[in-house]
Amino acid sequence: MRGGSLLVDEIGELSPQSGQLIAEVLACGICGSDLHALTHAEQIVEMTTVMSADAGPFAPAPMDISQDVVMGHEFSARVLELGPNVSSCAVGDVVVSLPIVMDAGGIHALGYDNTYPGGFAQQIALSEVLCTKVPNGLDPQLAALTEPMSVGLHAVRKSLVTATHAAVVLGCGPVGLAVIAALRAAGVETIVASDFSSSRRALASTFGATEVTDPGIESPLAIWRRIDGRKSLVIFEAVGVPGMLESVILEAPRGAQVVVVGVCMVADTFRPMIAVGKELNLQFVFGYDPAEFAETLHRIAEGEYEVGQMITSSVPLVGVADAFLALGDPDSQAKILVLPNQTELARPARN
Amino acid sequence: MRGGSLLVDEIGELSPQSGQLIAEVLACGICGSDLHALTHAEQIVEMTTVMSADAGPFAPAPMDISQDVVMGHEFSARVLELGPNVSSCAVGDVVVSLPIVMDAGGIHALGYDNTYPGGFAQQIALSEVLCTKVPNGLDPQLAALTEPMSVGLHAVRKSLVTATHAAVVLGCGPVGLAVIAALRAAGVETIVASDFSSSRRALASTFGATEVTDPGIESPLAIWRRIDGRKSLVIFEAVGVPGMLESVILEAPRGAQVVVVGVCMVADTFRPMIAVGKELNLQFVFGYDPAEFAETLHRIAEGEYEVGQMITSSVPLVGVADAFLALGDPDSQAKILVLPNQTELARPARN
Repeated sequence: MRGGSLLVDEIGELSPQSGQLIAEVLACGICGSDLHALTHAEQIVEMTTVMSADAGPFAPAPMDISQDVVMGHEFSARVLELGPNVSSCAVGDVVVSLPIVMDAGGIHALGYDNTYPGGFAQQIALSEVLCTKVPNGLDPQLAALTEPMSVGLHAVRKSLVTATHAAVVLGCGPVGLAVIAALRAAGVETIVASDFSSSRRALASTFGATEVTDPGIESPLAIWRRIDGRKSLVIFEAVGVPGMLESVILEAPRGAQVVVVGVCMVADTFRPMIAVGKELNLQFVFGYDPAEFAETLHRIAEGEYEVGQMITSSVPLVGVADAFLALGDPDSQAKILVLPNQTELARPARN
Repeated sequence: MRGGSLLVDEIGELSPQSGQLIAEVLACGICGSDLHALTHAEQIVEMTTVMSADAGPFAPAPMDISQDVVMGHEFSARVLELGPNVSSCAVGDVVVSLPIVMDAGGIHALGYDNTYPGGFAQQIALSEVLCTKVPNGLDPQLAALTEPMSVGLHAVRKSLVTATHAAVVLGCGPVGLAVIAALRAAGVETIVASDFSSSRRALASTFGATEVTDPGIESPLAIWRRIDGRKSLVIFEAVGVPGMLESVILEAPRGAQVVVVGVCMVADTFRPMIAVGKELNLQFVFGYDPAEFAETLHRIAEGEYEVGQMITSSVPLVGVADAFLALGDPDSQAKILVLPNQTELARPARN
């Protein structure tokens, strides 16, 4: 990303520092946050600035968008070279890693950093302590979905949801699908999912939604009232556009929890008084922790999460800019994988 | 309240229905919601409409502001007359009640209803099952503070706060003071309270705040960071004006809970992305339950809550309109009691 555009260029060679390794990227998913970074970079910088003001050296420094940024934070990679003081990884290991790399200067958010490239590069530097080995036999392209699937597990873990709750999931993009899979794994019996796209609704059923709806035809809250309406409800907002929150607050039942996992990049407006009158709880969630990340990889490896159907196409580096555009059409695309070390188009992003 | 103005007029005599009693109002506090009702009646009607759409017959029907409304929902009263099927109350008993009265047609919110008068009337109809006797020896003027003090107990109970947390209370009007008293009773050791008014800050200290601050000079969050900054934090927003939420979200530490107990009557704007990045939890709260109401009366009667200092003046019915105006000056007024059966000014509302 240079000056608000995407292009392919040569960058300097990486050299591993103490505790780091260099790895060849096998696959790296394009995330909704990457699309946001291209169109709302200032807001991402502002969020990172607020977070690092709070967390000091334990939060990554904000990126400088006047300089180059190599995005990509949902990757699997094969180890090429070990830096000093690396003992638990070997050359040839396939790994996934939290999208963070540490050095003597602090921590860096892979994909939103000026010093280290993210996963839309042929090679990346990783911190050994944040890497987890991909089990033998697991396709590295599926392993690359560990990161987005972790977001769903974390959202469900941060929520109040238990097997005795009902859940509504608004939006069936990759985040919504990850939430649905985690809800099913948690034993939630009523999972109502909504999306305007029929292909995303079909994916939602595959991932574990028990009811799916086009919100333009019937609201998922209306469906929940019709088929259940008695269990305590947790609503997962995985759309993240202005106005969603107000509409959820207006339709939510008294006492519901609303988990905000979709990232609305701009200021949003709602009527607090309606939320007060219903005693709603809004839990905003972000990311995951290392244990959730490792558990998600395990679930993918065991086949508990059948994530392959989420992958709608894969592209080499020269296809990334077009893939960003293609993701604007939710009916044809869900998750596009970038294969930086492949030169031919594996599966076209436009179909 | 008639046509958006306050006036004193004669209304029809009350006659108790089955399960009801008629009582003489001894004291009734003026609440911030009453001020709101005069200036933002449409919004209150809208909130009630949304709530009753959800709860059906278990929520009060919205008031019709084109007809008369007798406000007042923080009262103590002496029983004058018993209706059929009333057995646990006797004529002469002094009682407090949740501000709800039931009849064959449903439930009515005392103070926001067209059929039953609220406590700014000489007499009110109450439901026996919602009344609690005021213990002997407790001044009925103090007992009238049961309702607003219950709001604080409920907010603290709905929050995550425990004795190991720190708390920040934004706004030291009656709701903020009630929260502070409930926090102290819960054993919270660090309670930082903020208000622009020096007299309200003094009240906050009396009610149990361990630190008070003028937010124009030093933010309460900055004080918390300076004196504590390690314990998990719960922030109580008891101001309820547009912009407060955005400013709290911007200043809150990662993972904090924000309990919204101040009622912002108009649409408000904030940046969800900042709340996402910090994984904040927003708990909106409203009212209290019968057990919290009874416990609050008990705490007042036992002297655990020394509520008398909150009462800054008392007025007869003819003084209500001026008292509403006087409450606009937080430095001179906190809680004004209406004494509907008194004709002289006990303590002037303007001083």
